[in-house]
Amino acid sequence: MRLLLTIQYLGTRYAGWQAQSNAIAIQTVVEEVLTKIFHAPIRIEGGGRTDSGVHALAQRAHFDVPFPIPPRGMIRGMNDLLPHDIRILRIEEVAVDFHCRFDAKSKTYLYRICNDEVMDVFKWETHAHVAQKLDIDRMRGAAQALIGTHDFKAFTVLEPEVSSTLRTIQSIEIDESVAIRMTADGFLRNQVRRIVGSLIEIGRGKLDAEAIARSLEPTFEAARWTAPAKGLVLEEIRY
Amino acid sequence: MRLLLTIQYLGTRYAGWQAQSNAIAIQTVVEEVLTKIFHAPIRIEGGGRTDSGVHALAQRAHFDVPFPIPPRGMIRGMNDLLPHDIRILRIEEVAVDFHCRFDAKSKTYLYRICNDEVMDVFKWETHAHVAQKLDIDRMRGAAQALIGTHDFKAFTVLEPEVSSTLRTIQSIEIDESVAIRMTADGFLRNQVRRIVGSLIEIGRGKLDAEAIARSLEPTFEAARWTAPAKGLVLEEIRY
Repeated sequence: MRLLLTIQYLGTRYAGWQAQSNAIAIQTVVEEVLTKIFHAPIRIEGGGRTDSGVHALAQRAHFDVPFPIPPRGMIRGMNDLLPHDIRILRIEEVAVDFHCRFDAKSKTYLYRICNDEVMDVFKWETHAHVAQKLDIDRMRGAAQALIGTHDFKAFTVLEPEVSSTLRTIQSIEIDESVAIRMTADGFLRNQVRRIVGSLIEIGRGKLDAEAIARSLEPTFEAARWTAPAKGLVLEEIRY
Repeated sequence: MRLLLTIQYLGTRYAGWQAQSNAIAIQTVVEEVLTKIFHAPIRIEGGGRTDSGVHALAQRAHFDVPFPIPPRGMIRGMNDLLPHDIRILRIEEVAVDFHCRFDAKSKTYLYRICNDEVMDVFKWETHAHVAQKLDIDRMRGAAQALIGTHDFKAFTVLEPEVSSTLRTIQSIEIDESVAIRMTADGFLRNQVRRIVGSLIEIGRGKLDAEAIARSLEPTFEAARWTAPAKGLVLEEIRY
């Protein structure tokens, strides 16, 4: 029996989703709780590998249970054992061959910026701070070049296990608050933060609006700006 | 020359606004920064004495400067020296006999509750959690008894320096989010949190709706519930 978890977390205190050798990962914390509940070692597979400091509104993870437990009691039991910054929102049964990462149709990330001259203290954990007024229209214009299927190697750290750096971005919306919402079939390591890093430089007028388009050409120029992790939230994974 | 500061802060790490012997107060941190800037000991007077863990969207404080400094540069200088959870939003010159506490016409406090079954991790620092669904209409009905001038001794800890426990509440609004906003000519120690504590019990159906009215009678019954500090924000002080 395979179960799918929907998990909310604040990434502040963690080394990211995935198990690490030298710091506590969210995956590890959840696995330890499940292992306690089932009295047997449980391994979970995550839908998105969020980096250190990145948050999730609705991360997904699946695992196989040795015996059935009513979902409602299991949500309560897990939340009682988890620290306050990791919460289980939903548990549902899925097909035994369902895979929360490989079966994902699209992912949506949200990046939030406090664009006031003085940083709002209530946003310290979830927003980046850019004191200089951003030109939102200029950012929106530059972001159009990202829509569609492109080689995003300029916006990632190349990793041996990644066979292709082609990804399809379906939409990028930037509202005045400032929040940048991006949906794609998948994202490469650091891709959202590097795209946002370039968009911020464009919004500040420090980078020309065509820089993003140039980064997507075969003779690409690497994007050199990475926005801080704390502004990023994995908002949704669709199947 | 007397200056009025508008200060935003997260109360989480502090023993409250007012200088304490055994823990760091926000007032002390701000005074130390001003003392550094002016190279002379500066004492400030706060508009509202927020308790340990209580936040402020716009606390006010006044002080006398030994020599004039341009406000804009001073905001930046103070924010550079202050920790990330205390920010100076505005500095303005006021009359030399202005007093930010005695001259206050009214104060508004906001109390926020996460009323979802599972606590939203993004609200851990600024909201109380009540898992049981609150009956908002019942709370609104009960809150009406508080409007006007009453003896609020049932909702405070009696302190020798407080000569009167009469206060006038001008408005209480409760929205569905759940946020409770209260405006009065002034508040007694713990008054907002005790009122909210009773309102929560009424909203959960654990306390009858007339309990608040009874607490305001001369033969009062003390309100026994105090809502947690982290849900409370000093929103505005009007002069």
